[in-house]
Amino acid sequence: MSQTMVGAVSAELMAELETFYAHQMPLMEEQLFEAFAETFVEDCVFGYEGAWSVQGRTALLEGMRANIPRYGGATLRHWFQNRRAELLEDGAIGVTVTSLATITQPDGRVTLEPTCVVRDEIVRTAEGLRTRSRMIKHDLPNEGIYFGLGAGHE
Amino acid sequence: MSQTMVGAVSAELMAELETFYAHQMPLMEEQLFEAFAETFVEDCVFGYEGAWSVQGRTALLEGMRANIPRYGGATLRHWFQNRRAELLEDGAIGVTVTSLATITQPDGRVTLEPTCVVRDEIVRTAEGLRTRSRMIKHDLPNEGIYFGLGAGHE
Amino acid sequence: MSQTMVGAVSAELMAELETFYAHQMPLMEEQLFEAFAETFVEDCVFGYEGAWSVQGRTALLEGMRANIPRYGGATLRHWFQNRRAELLEDGAIGVTVTSLATITQPDGRVTLEPTCVVRDEIVRTAEGLRTRSRMIKHDLPNEGIYFGLGAGHE
Repeated sequence: MSQTMVGAVSAELMAELETFYAHQMPLMEEQLFEAFAETFVEDCVFGYEGAWSVQGRTALLEGMRANIPRYGGATLRHWFQNRRAELLEDGAIGVTVTSLATITQPDGRVTLEPTCVVRDEIVRTAEGLRTRSRMIKHDLPNEGIYFGLGAGHE
Repeated sequence: MSQTMVGAVSAELMAELETFYAHQMPLMEEQLFEAFAETFVEDCVFGYEGAWSVQGRTALLEGMRANIPRYGGATLRHWFQNRRAELLEDGAIGVTVTSLATITQPDGRVTLEPTCVVRDEIVRTAEGLRTRSRMIKHDLPNEGIYFGLGAGHE
Repeated sequence: MSQTMVGAVSAELMAELETFYAHQMPLMEEQLFEAFAETFVEDCVFGYEGAWSVQGRTALLEGMRANIPRYGGATLRHWFQNRRAELLEDGAIGVTVTSLATITQPDGRVTLEPTCVVRDEIVRTAEGLRTRSRMIKHDLPNEGIYFGLGAGHE
């Protein structure tokens, strides 16, 4: 089948990426951390630009288990927008999105986390698409402000 | 035409679903309840998991007319994310999304409803795609909390 | 290649539009006003329904430079939903979306602007897709209420 290219990326790949993210993010949100970590490659990088990053799926999993419980009984959800994909020289797919995170408290109140830009590198493996690296940068003067906010701040 | 499959669902079907929802949800938001109900099949189910549901397009229409006016002059909008589609055994399409609803008051204030997960079954009819069932589950300990919040709560 | 039509619009065109907007909106949000204006045709129209509009890329650029700085160090982001596209009689593409704008303050607080409906006309040029006209209508009794809110109001 010939492919209509969208920039350097086909409509088929855009749909495949949409489906990949649609499965990946609810795993984190529903605290299925092992299944979430499985959507990354073994030697992945996950971090915050100019702040810190972890390397490897085990470190990612430990980081998730240590940090997400700070939300307590609240539910974190992510709203991605402006997905732009490009083929990188080594064959990986560079994906950039803007993201908004909501936190729904058990009593129904909803708070918003600062918006951010997420830059991913996605690779195709025998098991399907996987995230090779994810770097997050909030729309703040520096990432320290984000980490100082606490969870579910108002 | 050969189809590139996205999971079990083609890029073409993903785009068709996107267009279906893009037309369906504004009908409800703009209180065009009859046109909204027409996007469901005659013997549809619409409900909230563990709480209640209505059966049939007439009951859905009556429910909309009874409940949506509680928003008064405010405008309800829905923001869907993470659309995952799969072909069900009977040929219907199972669709799961996360959803955020905003309420814009006539004076410009915006409030947020608790986030939720929407599970739809979509079928292809002579008139195009139609919703056969929609079950909603908010990110709350139970649906009663949602119904206790009132409209446009802050 | 045969095209599966989505309404009057193919899955390929939907993906192309998605990519167009995914590039266009961050240019405005990141205050790259010249690059943003370049995504419009030279004799574009940009305005608010029932309020005012500007004509031409130069006027659009001047309007951006005059108005966006009111957000100060805050970051404006847009969240589009329900993209509906149709082919217009003159070959342009009519696109309607609902939009939510967030404003992230430098201290991390996030406020919401009233939701709105954006109606675009998109044309294909030698440089790719470009916006020929954009008309915005907020979910408010009139646009004056929006302009009276100020930036980053709470």
